[in-house]
Amino acid sequence: MGMVGGGRDAFIGAVHRMAAALDGQIELVCGAFSSSAEKSKATGNDLYLPESRVYGSYEEMFEKEKQLPEGERMDFVSIVTPNYLHFPPAKMALENGFHVVCDKPMTFNLTEAKELAQLVEKTGLMFALTHNYTGYPMVKQARDMIKDGKIGKIRKVVVEYPQGWLSTKLEDTGQKQASWRADPNKTGAANSMGDIGTHAENLSEYITGLKIVDLCADLHTYVEGRPLDDDGNVLLKLENGATGVLHASQISVGEENDLNIRIYGETGGLEWHQQEPNTLVVKQLEGPATIYRTGANHGYLGESAQLHTRIPGGHPEGFIEAFANIYRNFAVTLRSKLEGKDPDPKFIDFPTVYDGVRGMAFIETVVASSKSTEKWTKFKS
Amino acid sequence: MGMVGGGRDAFIGAVHRMAAALDGQIELVCGAFSSSAEKSKATGNDLYLPESRVYGSYEEMFEKEKQLPEGERMDFVSIVTPNYLHFPPAKMALENGFHVVCDKPMTFNLTEAKELAQLVEKTGLMFALTHNYTGYPMVKQARDMIKDGKIGKIRKVVVEYPQGWLSTKLEDTGQKQASWRADPNKTGAANSMGDIGTHAENLSEYITGLKIVDLCADLHTYVEGRPLDDDGNVLLKLENGATGVLHASQISVGEENDLNIRIYGETGGLEWHQQEPNTLVVKQLEGPATIYRTGANHGYLGESAQLHTRIPGGHPEGFIEAFANIYRNFAVTLRSKLEGKDPDPKFIDFPTVYDGVRGMAFIETVVASSKSTEKWTKFKS
Amino acid sequence: MGMVGGGRDAFIGAVHRMAAALDGQIELVCGAFSSSAEKSKATGNDLYLPESRVYGSYEEMFEKEKQLPEGERMDFVSIVTPNYLHFPPAKMALENGFHVVCDKPMTFNLTEAKELAQLVEKTGLMFALTHNYTGYPMVKQARDMIKDGKIGKIRKVVVEYPQGWLSTKLEDTGQKQASWRADPNKTGAANSMGDIGTHAENLSEYITGLKIVDLCADLHTYVEGRPLDDDGNVLLKLENGATGVLHASQISVGEENDLNIRIYGETGGLEWHQQEPNTLVVKQLEGPATIYRTGANHGYLGESAQLHTRIPGGHPEGFIEAFANIYRNFAVTLRSKLEGKDPDPKFIDFPTVYDGVRGMAFIETVVASSKSTEKWTKFKS
Amino acid sequence: MGMVGGGRDAFIGAVHRMAAALDGQIELVCGAFSSSAEKSKATGNDLYLPESRVYGSYEEMFEKEKQLPEGERMDFVSIVTPNYLHFPPAKMALENGFHVVCDKPMTFNLTEAKELAQLVEKTGLMFALTHNYTGYPMVKQARDMIKDGKIGKIRKVVVEYPQGWLSTKLEDTGQKQASWRADPNKTGAANSMGDIGTHAENLSEYITGLKIVDLCADLHTYVEGRPLDDDGNVLLKLENGATGVLHASQISVGEENDLNIRIYGETGGLEWHQQEPNTLVVKQLEGPATIYRTGANHGYLGESAQLHTRIPGGHPEGFIEAFANIYRNFAVTLRSKLEGKDPDPKFIDFPTVYDGVRGMAFIETVVASSKSTEKWTKFKS
Repeated sequence: MGMVGGGRDAFIGAVHRMAAALDGQIELVCGAFSSSAEKSKATGNDLYLPESRVYGSYEEMFEKEKQLPEGERMDFVSIVTPNYLHFPPAKMALENGFHVVCDKPMTFNLTEAKELAQLVEKTGLMFALTHNYTGYPMVKQARDMIKDGKIGKIRKVVVEYPQGWLSTKLEDTGQKQASWRADPNKTGAANSMGDIGTHAENLSEYITGLKIVDLCADLHTYVEGRPLDDDGNVLLKLENGATGVLHASQISVGEENDLNIRIYGETGGLEWHQQEPNTLVVKQLEGPATIYRTGANHGYLGESAQLHTRIPGGHPEGFIEAFANIYRNFAVTLRSKLEGKDPDPKFIDFPTVYDGVRGMAFIETVVASSKSTEKWTKFKS
Repeated sequence: MGMVGGGRDAFIGAVHRMAAALDGQIELVCGAFSSSAEKSKATGNDLYLPESRVYGSYEEMFEKEKQLPEGERMDFVSIVTPNYLHFPPAKMALENGFHVVCDKPMTFNLTEAKELAQLVEKTGLMFALTHNYTGYPMVKQARDMIKDGKIGKIRKVVVEYPQGWLSTKLEDTGQKQASWRADPNKTGAANSMGDIGTHAENLSEYITGLKIVDLCADLHTYVEGRPLDDDGNVLLKLENGATGVLHASQISVGEENDLNIRIYGETGGLEWHQQEPNTLVVKQLEGPATIYRTGANHGYLGESAQLHTRIPGGHPEGFIEAFANIYRNFAVTLRSKLEGKDPDPKFIDFPTVYDGVRGMAFIETVVASSKSTEKWTKFKS
Repeated sequence: MGMVGGGRDAFIGAVHRMAAALDGQIELVCGAFSSSAEKSKATGNDLYLPESRVYGSYEEMFEKEKQLPEGERMDFVSIVTPNYLHFPPAKMALENGFHVVCDKPMTFNLTEAKELAQLVEKTGLMFALTHNYTGYPMVKQARDMIKDGKIGKIRKVVVEYPQGWLSTKLEDTGQKQASWRADPNKTGAANSMGDIGTHAENLSEYITGLKIVDLCADLHTYVEGRPLDDDGNVLLKLENGATGVLHASQISVGEENDLNIRIYGETGGLEWHQQEPNTLVVKQLEGPATIYRTGANHGYLGESAQLHTRIPGGHPEGFIEAFANIYRNFAVTLRSKLEGKDPDPKFIDFPTVYDGVRGMAFIETVVASSKSTEKWTKFKS
Repeated sequence: MGMVGGGRDAFIGAVHRMAAALDGQIELVCGAFSSSAEKSKATGNDLYLPESRVYGSYEEMFEKEKQLPEGERMDFVSIVTPNYLHFPPAKMALENGFHVVCDKPMTFNLTEAKELAQLVEKTGLMFALTHNYTGYPMVKQARDMIKDGKIGKIRKVVVEYPQGWLSTKLEDTGQKQASWRADPNKTGAANSMGDIGTHAENLSEYITGLKIVDLCADLHTYVEGRPLDDDGNVLLKLENGATGVLHASQISVGEENDLNIRIYGETGGLEWHQQEPNTLVVKQLEGPATIYRTGANHGYLGESAQLHTRIPGGHPEGFIEAFANIYRNFAVTLRSKLEGKDPDPKFIDFPTVYDGVRGMAFIETVVASSKSTEKWTKFKS
């Protein structure tokens, strides 16, 4: 694996590296960690990389790595830069024959996203998008229970993503994560709806298997002087006639990162909270709720939940482990491909370029809907 | 106290009686418990009332009670019938000089509600509406903290009221509570939004002190053959520029009665759940969340929270106690009036006829909005 | 009902009155609320009692009430005084033909307790002890599930009762509840173990149906200058070979009233917490835990749990309701007796004089064990 | 890092490898993964190790690695075998100049433990014991708050470690983890008290900074035919006069791995549960409890809690991350030593050989106490 972005003061780059390292399937072999060659070197040094594999730019990295013998050169690149710098290196990677893992939202706008999807199709290379929350075992369990009809036809979805970290104008303090997210030239058409709203959208569609087809959005900017939304509420219609609510916020004081979802079907309900990710509440028409728990030793869990769990119940697995599931699945599938084998379908379970297209379409749709006086706006991608 | 409704198989009538009895301030002295004189007698007998004070109709009750000497006759009537039977006895009570406690939603439609408000104004009699959830000590605490500026200017409100009891067509089984609620001729223009949505609306306005001024509603009927809504999602705009989400449901499988509210201001947040009513989570911009708890011995609680608590912390108080707070406040205020004293303002804290008007306007507004293709509908009352 | 004790600044007297009033089965008709006749009158006045039925002493009350005609005079007396004043009025009540409800611990010492038990047997009068925590519906459910073999042979019990209210020398501030409890002449041989340890002991034996047969106690006094224990830890052996831990504390800073119990059998486990009394966690050998919830509409609950619940699930019932269940059962049983009918066995479910004897023996045993260098002390009663 | 043990069907070996890999500080370079050379090769292959560095026995590994040039040979060995196979390789590693990370309990008996401590002292090599639960950020926070006097002098400790996985005779099914633990020749003098009781003891002493000086133990074997304890309850006296309760169990049906601790001081209390490790409840004499949460961005946390956290609040870190903190601290300290620098004291925070001696003494003391008729047994090491 090579990396684009993820220099010393980045948050998500370090997460990607831990996630990639966890299962012993992936080795970081090179990187262009910063647009400053000096900073890139410093990060490479922190990471015990040989100087020769630390590059001053991603262009240089693709160029040089391509010339290395197979087996030595990186197999794929992980792109962990701010949003506006996802598309250029992703495109160049694909054009140079490298598989790609990319952070979300996938691109700066929908046009880039569609172009990327075409490029993935054309090159036949692998592309994973790190909508990491779908990597949690209990999210897999929820998806599988719904697929198996355990809660009947879905009627209602409530998906929330409250955070409070941007309740004040943090971007003015120089905090790096806040700064670029607040800048429309770096983050794209939406902030709260792009950074976290897309996670909520993706989680809902992943678990329910149902596309959102219409929505009614109301986005807001509460902190004065901020050009993009920091909060938004959305009514949803799903393709099967179900309805729902999605709301995401960066000004919900005191909330950390409380992505959560409740799904109600004709015969049962499911509830999952990212901050207590090892618990899935399963509700019944009659009878008490049951508490499903992550655990490699829990025979009542489905195959996929167990496949994405490393340790026995009561040994909590968290954010990094879920993130690592995306990388592990990508790596196992890629290894099969590289070895000329048919990949095991069980591991072909990671977000793709099409999730990315859908996320970008979501952003553009909620922004359009929020400006509209019409109640409903179609959501297609 | 006399009672209209509340026969043997009624749920809410028994709750009213327990709530009224709890604090030793109110004595049930008479009742017209059923439209069947026989059933009314049977209930009166269950309640150890003398036969002479058990009436076959509320008309008879008002007539006969009026003729009893002061001190002996009932001071006020409690109306606990289905929605369509609130207005007639309430009107007659007021016209005959009796104070009124009435279950919610207040009337069958907004027109009746406004007429009732005028009658209350004209007669100068007391009228309490049992939006009982505002009787909880932690709800008082939340209201007072907001009034005192503890969380700053409010930005966002999320108020939810999920229930699951009508996930199947319970009304076809003869279950009495379900049956009349499903009947538009008895319940009014909305079911989920009337029965529980109005509680959510009332709770939000009570705690925040902010009126909802615009809303965008999407009501649904999920159980086939049901004439009224059993689920609804609503976007909100509040008078100070805050926004929010309100949703209420009777088809959220596995949910009992989970009314809850989260409020985010510029400097803090509050969270309260009716099913764990003795806890109020107080969130801060910086610093850990704090867990406020009901308790007559908790010095950090405000005066009103303590005034509505009977026992020390850790001795859970519940639904009946909160309900009883409405009755207690009504009774204490009424007693002052009857004794010719100025009522203590601390106890003039119970929902009034104006809350009822607002609730009926809410019902009509969400129904209209749900049918409209316009995004926003004005909510006035 | 007449009452001994429960004057204006008492806590538990008011609880008894609310509990007795809740279900409309019991009327407070007289009282000797204080050893000061003046205070007694003031309380009687607060409670709207006629002056003629408010007495200056319990002796006077029994004397005068006895002379009233049946149907007018009180049927039973409720004794809510400090511990040392339980036995004298209880004895006198029984000797004068009045049934008795008495607060716990039952007496000042074991000798009195045994004498009282003999007197109850001799008179054939009814006697209920308000170990109120056994009145909770989920406690009934736990008991019944164990009785029905749902968790198999019991192996381990952990019962805890942490409070923090005596972490400082509250008794020196004049706080009434703290003052008499700290006084060995009023409270008896133990404070924490008497006031709350006996609740833990009673709860364990009630739910499991198993007597504690040996114990190893370590009592402590953490607040300097306090003559009695304010904390204690006890190892338990149960009659069937199970073992366990019981600890109770008044110096567990920040704890309110967190009585809780976990029971593990060969095939299942149960967990209940008084501060969230409407939830019973049911654990299985294989499979997820299930969350049983109080609710008159929950068909999966047993008959007794439902019989002790007033309202549907999600409408929380609390401390007063559980307390009221003791009174309701006592009253229903007493009414049958007074009417010459066979009491319904379903309602003959309240703590008796024998629970009181056992509680007093528990106190004496833990005190003896704590002083002993032997590991195990026999616990008989 | 080299590894002894941790073959294909081992649980804890994989955990050690993930923990070592997470932070990019440690590379697995060799191993003797099984006493079967064939199995060892297979595991080495799974881990992408070169065949030359996969050994058939630890003796061979130490021998061969020693001959490799510095920089290429392993710096330390990680021992992850069953208990009875800790001491021999640890001893040999130290005698051959390799630093050691060792799983717990440290040895088969106290004699071995003391010999190992002497050897560590003599060689001056580093030795870390993976009492991994002390690696959690909130455990660090609790320790530091106590050290800083935030809860005053400690009065009471309750530390519990309930598991249910050995409620049936799992060892008879061939389950590997259960099998060796049930065998006194492999596990040592105690099972529940050794495998998990020592974690509880270590956690208590780590957080409070107070040694347990006397104890009164009652160990049991509930599953028939099992030679060692599967449950135990212990009363504690701490060196400062505080008391407490420790209990550990493998037959608590339905419990996963619920290590938890509550500590009460004169002015505050702390509560932590391993299954929700990112939360620390901080209790006060007056005022509401506060909820401290793990998070690199939480300014209210102490330096050590933040140093042991990788990501912002609300992104849950779990068991592997805490385990990795032990490895990270060990590696950072070792690197300083190898580079001839003074280690940063902030990272010299991992369990040592002395914790291991104390753990082995704990095992022997509880076993002796359980057999004794004396109430108290001295706990020294």
